[in-house]
This record gives sequence, C-alpha cells and structure tokens, in this order.
Amino acid sequence: MSQVKKTTIILFSGDYDKAMAAYIIANGAAAYDHEVTIFHTFWGLNALRKDEQVEPPRKKGFMERMFARMMPRGADKMGLSKMNFAGMGPKMIKDVIRKHNAVPLPQLIEMAQEQDVKLVACTMTMDLLGLQKEELLEGIEYAGVAAYLGDAQDGNVNLFI
Amino acid sequence: MSQVKKTTIILFSGDYDKAMAAYIIANGAAAYDHEVTIFHTFWGLNALRKDEQVEPPRKKGFMERMFARMMPRGADKMGLSKMNFAGMGPKMIKDVIRKHNAVPLPQLIEMAQEQDVKLVACTMTMDLLGLQKEELLEGIEYAGVAAYLGDAQDGNVNLFI
Amino acid sequence: MSQVKKTTIILFSGDYDKAMAAYIIANGAAAYDHEVTIFHTFWGLNALRKDEQVEPPRKKGFMERMFARMMPRGADKMGLSKMNFAGMGPKMIKDVIRKHNAVPLPQLIEMAQEQDVKLVACTMTMDLLGLQKEELLEGIEYAGVAAYLGDAQDGNVNLFI
Repeated sequence: MSQVKKTTIILFSGDYDKAMAAYIIANGAAAYDHEVTIFHTFWGLNALRKDEQVEPPRKKGFMERMFARMMPRGADKMGLSKMNFAGMGPKMIKDVIRKHNAVPLPQLIEMAQEQDVKLVACTMTMDLLGLQKEELLEGIEYAGVAAYLGDAQDGNVNLFI
Repeated sequence: MSQVKKTTIILFSGDYDKAMAAYIIANGAAAYDHEVTIFHTFWGLNALRKDEQVEPPRKKGFMERMFARMMPRGADKMGLSKMNFAGMGPKMIKDVIRKHNAVPLPQLIEMAQEQDVKLVACTMTMDLLGLQKEELLEGIEYAGVAAYLGDAQDGNVNLFI
Repeated sequence: MSQVKKTTIILFSGDYDKAMAAYIIANGAAAYDHEVTIFHTFWGLNALRKDEQVEPPRKKGFMERMFARMMPRGADKMGLSKMNFAGMGPKMIKDVIRKHNAVPLPQLIEMAQEQDVKLVACTMTMDLLGLQKEELLEGIEYAGVAAYLGDAQDGNVNLFI
C-alpha cells in the first residue's frame, strides 16, 4: 500500500461552474503531490469534447446525432448550474473570471493535463450517448466503473460532483 | 478494524440519471466485495417508492398528500437532471439504454438488492414528507444520520449524489 | 496521524435543501466527536451571508452589485433544488419543518457554530463574486482550496454537496 495520497473525482455534472470546482480541486491536489483522477461520466463527459466539429469514423444513428447536437461541445460551451439566464450567466462568470485574473475552465483542463491529472472518459456513457474517441480531447484515458473503484478505494478524498 | 472495503452513497437527488449513477457505482462496488450502503434522503427517497398506489395505514394530512402526489412514485417515474424536456428526456434515455442493452434504473435497484447492497431510507425525511413504510419497497432498512455516519467513518469511498 | 475522525463537506450548492443536508450531516458528525469542516464555495457561500443589508467598506463594481442583488442574502432566503415553484417550495418545506419540530437551516447553522464545526468561506469565490467579510456571518474562517485539502486528506468522510 503506497503512501501517496489520492484524490478521485467523479465529474457527473455538465455545468460550467461545477466542472470549474472539480478542476480547481484537482489542480490543487496535484500541486500537493496527490495522484489525481477525474472520471468523466454522463453530462460531465461534455467537458472533454473537442470544440471543433469532428466527423466521427463510425456513422451516428438518429439519437446519437440528437445528443451530439444538443449537448455542449467542449468545456467553453457549458452552462451554469445556477443563474444561467438562457446562456448569459456563463458570459458574466467568464467576464468576472477574466477581470480577476482567475483561470477559465478550458485552461484549468490544460493545467490538469500538464500536472498529470488522469482524465478518464467513462466508456459506458460514451456508448450510451454515441460519443467516439475522435470527438474527445487527446491524451485522456478510457475506462469503466471498475477502474474508478480501483483508484478510489486506495484514496480518501473521493468526491462526486 | 475490519479489512472489508466499504462504499457508502448518500442519494439525495431525485433525478433518474443521478440515481442510475449511484446504483451503477453501488453494484460495481458490491461486485468487488465492498460492503455497500445507499442512504436515501430527501428526493432520493422517491427511488424507493413502490410504483403502485398504496393506501397507507396512517391517514395523510394535506401537505403529505400534496407531496405524495407531486413526487415521482418509484424509480421509473423520475426525471432527468439535464435535458428533461418536460418529461421526454427520460423516455429518450430509456430508449437509448434499451438499444444498448444497458440496465434501466428499476433493474439496477433489483440487482443491488440481490447483491446485498444495504438500501436505507432516511427516517427524518420519511417523517417530513409523510412517507410510510408501506409505501416503500420491501427489504430495505430504516435509519437516521447516526447510522449513516457509523457506516461512512469506516470506509473511504463516501459519495453524496 | 491523529485518531480523531474527520468529516469535511464542500458546500457548493446554494439550495436550501442541499444546505440543510450538509448541516444535518455536519451536526451529526460533530455530535459523534468528529472534527468537522464545511467549506463554502460558489453558491454555497450564500448560506453564510448576513440577512440584513450591509454597506461593505469597499465600494462594489457593477457586476459585484448585480451578484449581490441576485443571490440570496443568507440561509433563510435560499431556494430549493426541486419543486421550488417560483419560491413557494421553500415556504412549504419550512411549514413542514415547523410542524414536525425539525430544525430550519438558520438554526442548524447556529447549532453547528455552537458545536465548533469549522465554517470556512472560500476566498477565491468571495473575490469573484465581490463578497466582503463584513457581509458574512461572524466567527467563520477564510481559506482556499489548499486548506480544504489539508483537512480532507486526513479524514475519510469527504463530501461534495
């Protein structure tokens, strides 16, 4: 049993503010030498989508195209959990972030990758929503709930966001 | 101090997708021989309601009848946390689940019971919302926050969903 | 490594019901001699706002005034995560709480302070939303994510609400 501290976060939410919280905690924990994993499942998977339109190799069915169109393409397009105001809320938050020299979500994700935070896409969700590897960011891993539990059971900072 | 790994989940949410996530994690952990508890509180209690109408032995007051009518009766009636579309979202998700041979929520709950996942109904919430034992699934336990803490403090995969 | 059990809760949500759950768990854990911390971040910070209007010493900018006006001033003004019904939901819940001799949120917060639960306001969020110390309850602490991790990594009941 290693002495390395572990932090694992399940990012279930597709909200910009909740994803920010997840990545701020993850980056903080990585800075304190924790081994950190963010397991992206359900709507949280959207944080890992590339922001450009990608023609996936396998043709999508009707439902898959609908999900693809309705869900935000990448971290920068996500809405807020509160005060979304039909899309105005995220702009307000981003203005405030810029004004205070805080770090917006896409850069928090880059920082996490630079700090070797393990970003995992839930393969079950990818299957359900019809998302393919080519549509997601480079340098991430693919796994299921068993791999998540393997990481989580050895750590004690385990959060569901 | 036993060596058995423990996973405890507080299911606060009454959303179909969040409850699915809770039960998928719980079933996974049970398959890896964790002792697993799901503590259903607030809206999460709705996942344990029977889907048929039950005439409870104690007559309900006005507020209790209102809660009973407005809250979903059982796992299959719950809405989504995102893209609910006035009730169309759950149907879409269930179609997708069926098409991919994934397991819908009511069966995930049955699987959990077969794997001896401890399903607990929060007695404080039952009292507040006026839910009686006869309205909830068979084979569950009844407890408060003290029992939850007793389970959680010996494990390290402790999630609030 | 001390033998004291620790419970840490990140209160991200600004919903009355979720904050109630957080404080019920915190008070329960404190009663069982856990060292308990609630780290209030993002919308969860609203639970710590004073309910009277405070003239903050540093003049607020436009966005800060907007946030201050739109966000609930204190625990008693927060909405529900479900069945908010344009503000009627909280009243219903509070009626039910009173009728059942349960404890409403503002008193749960007082109880937590009496039991030495450490209430922390996230300084990054205060900066982003323009909230100043004078606008928040007395007797709380101010810290960032590093302090949270310092508490969380020694405990095992770590929840994100």
